[in-house]
Amino acid sequence: MKKYKNPKKFKSFQGLKPADSLRIIPVGGQEEVGRNMTIFEYKDDIVVVDMGVQFPEEDMLGIDYIIPNISYLKGKEAKVRGVIFTHGHLDHIGAAPILLEKLGNPSIIGRPLTLALIKNRQEDYKKGSSQRLKTITVKSVNDRLRLGNFSVGFFPVDHSIMDAMGVILNTPHGTVIHPGDWTYEKDPVGRQSVEYSKLARLPKPTILMLESLGATHTHNRVTEKTMYGNLEKLIREAPGRIIIGTFSSQVARIKYVLEFCEKIGKRVALDGFSMKMNVETAKRLGYIKIKKETLIPIERIRDYPDRKIVIICTGAQGESNAVLSRIINRNHRFVRIQKTDTIVFSSSIIPGNERTIQRLKDNLYRVSDNVIHSDIMDIHSSGHSTAEDMKTVLKQIRPTYFLPVYANHYFHKEAEKLAVREGFPREKIFVLDNGAILEFTHGQPKLLNQKAVTDYVFVDGLGVGDVSNVVLRDRQMLAADGMVVVIVNVDRHTGNIIGEPDIITRGFVHIKTSKALIEETRKRVKTFFKDKKSHTEANDAYIGNKIRDELGQYFFNKTNRRPMILPVVIDV
Amino acid sequence: MKKYKNPKKFKSFQGLKPADSLRIIPVGGQEEVGRNMTIFEYKDDIVVVDMGVQFPEEDMLGIDYIIPNISYLKGKEAKVRGVIFTHGHLDHIGAAPILLEKLGNPSIIGRPLTLALIKNRQEDYKKGSSQRLKTITVKSVNDRLRLGNFSVGFFPVDHSIMDAMGVILNTPHGTVIHPGDWTYEKDPVGRQSVEYSKLARLPKPTILMLESLGATHTHNRVTEKTMYGNLEKLIREAPGRIIIGTFSSQVARIKYVLEFCEKIGKRVALDGFSMKMNVETAKRLGYIKIKKETLIPIERIRDYPDRKIVIICTGAQGESNAVLSRIINRNHRFVRIQKTDTIVFSSSIIPGNERTIQRLKDNLYRVSDNVIHSDIMDIHSSGHSTAEDMKTVLKQIRPTYFLPVYANHYFHKEAEKLAVREGFPREKIFVLDNGAILEFTHGQPKLLNQKAVTDYVFVDGLGVGDVSNVVLRDRQMLAADGMVVVIVNVDRHTGNIIGEPDIITRGFVHIKTSKALIEETRKRVKTFFKDKKSHTEANDAYIGNKIRDELGQYFFNKTNRRPMILPVVIDV
Repeated sequence: MKKYKNPKKFKSFQGLKPADSLRIIPVGGQEEVGRNMTIFEYKDDIVVVDMGVQFPEEDMLGIDYIIPNISYLKGKEAKVRGVIFTHGHLDHIGAAPILLEKLGNPSIIGRPLTLALIKNRQEDYKKGSSQRLKTITVKSVNDRLRLGNFSVGFFPVDHSIMDAMGVILNTPHGTVIHPGDWTYEKDPVGRQSVEYSKLARLPKPTILMLESLGATHTHNRVTEKTMYGNLEKLIREAPGRIIIGTFSSQVARIKYVLEFCEKIGKRVALDGFSMKMNVETAKRLGYIKIKKETLIPIERIRDYPDRKIVIICTGAQGESNAVLSRIINRNHRFVRIQKTDTIVFSSSIIPGNERTIQRLKDNLYRVSDNVIHSDIMDIHSSGHSTAEDMKTVLKQIRPTYFLPVYANHYFHKEAEKLAVREGFPREKIFVLDNGAILEFTHGQPKLLNQKAVTDYVFVDGLGVGDVSNVVLRDRQMLAADGMVVVIVNVDRHTGNIIGEPDIITRGFVHIKTSKALIEETRKRVKTFFKDKKSHTEANDAYIGNKIRDELGQYFFNKTNRRPMILPVVIDV
Repeated sequence: MKKYKNPKKFKSFQGLKPADSLRIIPVGGQEEVGRNMTIFEYKDDIVVVDMGVQFPEEDMLGIDYIIPNISYLKGKEAKVRGVIFTHGHLDHIGAAPILLEKLGNPSIIGRPLTLALIKNRQEDYKKGSSQRLKTITVKSVNDRLRLGNFSVGFFPVDHSIMDAMGVILNTPHGTVIHPGDWTYEKDPVGRQSVEYSKLARLPKPTILMLESLGATHTHNRVTEKTMYGNLEKLIREAPGRIIIGTFSSQVARIKYVLEFCEKIGKRVALDGFSMKMNVETAKRLGYIKIKKETLIPIERIRDYPDRKIVIICTGAQGESNAVLSRIINRNHRFVRIQKTDTIVFSSSIIPGNERTIQRLKDNLYRVSDNVIHSDIMDIHSSGHSTAEDMKTVLKQIRPTYFLPVYANHYFHKEAEKLAVREGFPREKIFVLDNGAILEFTHGQPKLLNQKAVTDYVFVDGLGVGDVSNVVLRDRQMLAADGMVVVIVNVDRHTGNIIGEPDIITRGFVHIKTSKALIEETRKRVKTFFKDKKSHTEANDAYIGNKIRDELGQYFFNKTNRRPMILPVVIDV
């Protein structure tokens, strides 16, 4: 069983004094993908970039998500001048409701769609709580802002959601350039290509914190033009309905499909709570401009000829209760797969979902002969970059320092190698762990010995941080071999057992076929009392240990399983 | 929660009479990858091909593996003339010890290495039991065999293990051609390319059962020559030791590395139980020919200069107790990573292991700057084919019927599409589910209405098939939210509670921080007794239900979790 602790190479942070220098402290996003958050500290001012969630690993049983650990900010809440959000995806905004509250609701800064999505998330978390948010809207990427001693600027980036922006944090000790998540779209549809050369003219030293998920992607990225071309052809030529399964966060792609469908006179029905909400939000803000009649409620799809209908729904990751799964399993109220339907999945695989998606594909292929996905056709364009893109951007920005961020450690190391191969000086690259404290003083970097605490903070239902390693270990044990509760009533005077022991098992063996095992267990429990010792020492702990140890061994011999054994000894 | 049942489109098989026709019944390998096994029945004779295991899905908690369901063979055991194994990988031989025993140990047929690996597996299962195996060794692929009314032949195939062979089953009703797992090696090292055109001359109709994992692989496969070229360069030029992590089943690759190391004067240490056993077996059979001094025990690696040492070990899938993980975690007795070590992982990802392998990579990158894997360099050559290879083979064999097998349903459907695009008549392609019964009578195919039972048979520890859906559902529930046992002693006369209720939780909440919750739980339990009804109806079931329902609701309101609640009401 794995323990979730950070490698303790450094001393933990203990009341580090503010210094006249710029401190960069990534508290998430440096070791695994997600829970992205970076703290910037300069004198008595703190600025935070992003507050994302991370999805749990397979053995983090029952955990909903993981949020960044903000121990470093304890006692410094009043110094937080603002939290800047680069874009509205959950791995960048998902932890905002919990963390903003803990920090006493500092100002949040972002472009309109990003802020609107944070508000939605906040309302989801606690009804009415979005009122408390103090927002500063970045109306244009040319806006300038002061947050305490930080001078803040922005720049446009390409990503799979509208309103993604990069952040510039200028201090006398160095200028941070942080694009958030990004891709380099060579063939954008409906807008100009983003070029970063301007950033090379920022005050030196510049510190580029570059999301490096693409460090080992050596294939060419599918361009928007190719992807949209294929999607348009599919939608235009479909013999019947089109059902598109995607992420609710793929707002840019959904917008494109909506606008294209309007152009060719098709109606679109959306399904999936988060997708409808995101599209509603984007419409309200004017990012999606369609006529009222283009979007129809899902219950009205039968009012139109099939070849006029496009359904966009959630569930492309095989989530068992999402719309696409319900359609496939014939549990959807309004949609039944028909022979003439074309089913399109237009999204990439979130790591860890591979087998679930494989199962989804198998099931789709059972109900339809017209399934189109990225294995078959280029209908997905990644929101992330490639190794080539990273080289291009490094050349355009020519930063003084390079910090790979927002990916697994492995990608950061590969990003470092890539930069070194391109001639970037190795000593000016920092591959940071979560919690590392990198200090720039008049442009000179220094990695501190101290480290901020960044242990996992698990969110499970309403509990934040209350699921510990002990609880997880118990869940892992219960999941593997189930459990056995053994209840014995003991005469408090004689130490003898009263009546029969009660044996309850769950998740251990199939009761019907294991009667003999249970009977033998009862017998064995009774023998524990025949033992002379138990009469004299007659104490519950002794019997409890016997039950745990000897039955444990017996079960293991019989089944090769190690159920959790809970002895309950009741003195009567 | 998912239920593991096959879609019941057909009636289940119920004592189907033998017919003068050839029946093909795949009992595994048609819906997911693994537990490959096909039953062939003709008159009173049955021949089986392969008996593999399948690895569990994520939600099959605690399950070790899944074996084919052999309900169809119940009562027909005496008709089984032999079980043919195409090669020695676990998804083809892993279920042999359990299933052969159930079938009364019919003859097993395979090439020498395959049979030797089955014997190893058998010994692993029950010491001394391999004595009972009745083996027929296929000394040459040109051997011919009669198994009852089946005339059996073989043909060579390329795969990532030595002694892989294809099977030909000839009957008057049709000739089955089954290559097992295969790849099409265009640039083989040390042997000739395999060509299948000869099979086109077999008596018609021919029925090609083709493993179709490659149906959507449109990239070129890395050839052996490229892979071995890269590996040789790495091994030759390494500044220090080389540590190669791979599968123990990659016997062909391990052989190559061993022989190459001998040629350039390096010593090889193997680590990992199954790897050492496989290499030992291959050596004993003469498949690996190396001098005694080439292979050294792992404890002797320090007796040689680092640049003379190559370590080949298991654990490339990130298995937490395998050798590679132990090396990384500094738990290995003899190997500590050094700055000059080069670490090579030369294997593909088993679906479902993506995140574990990502974690392994992250950890490797923490301890070493010289990690080489397939993202970085072509050091892996797949044992499976590509879409192009499939087309080539279809053209060479020109079968009358085409049955895609040994992959997910989705790949089978894509294989069908591929064949149709190549001009293969759609009506001569059968995409079968597990348990489908396809009957050929004088060359005419007919899919029967009946279906063999192929429900999952789970192996968990020593239990075969004793873990049911109920047990799995309990494990899923325990894994997600843990459990709460509530024990109350009730006065059998008054129906009043005696003393305090006992509350035991595991995997639900962190006890230390949840004292108030537990206290409140106790209080609530006591109120159940204050209720008038409980006095009059005073029965355990009523109190038990109250505990389950009302505490369940209380826990959900407080935590948004649904632990399993076990009420224990004891009458005293």
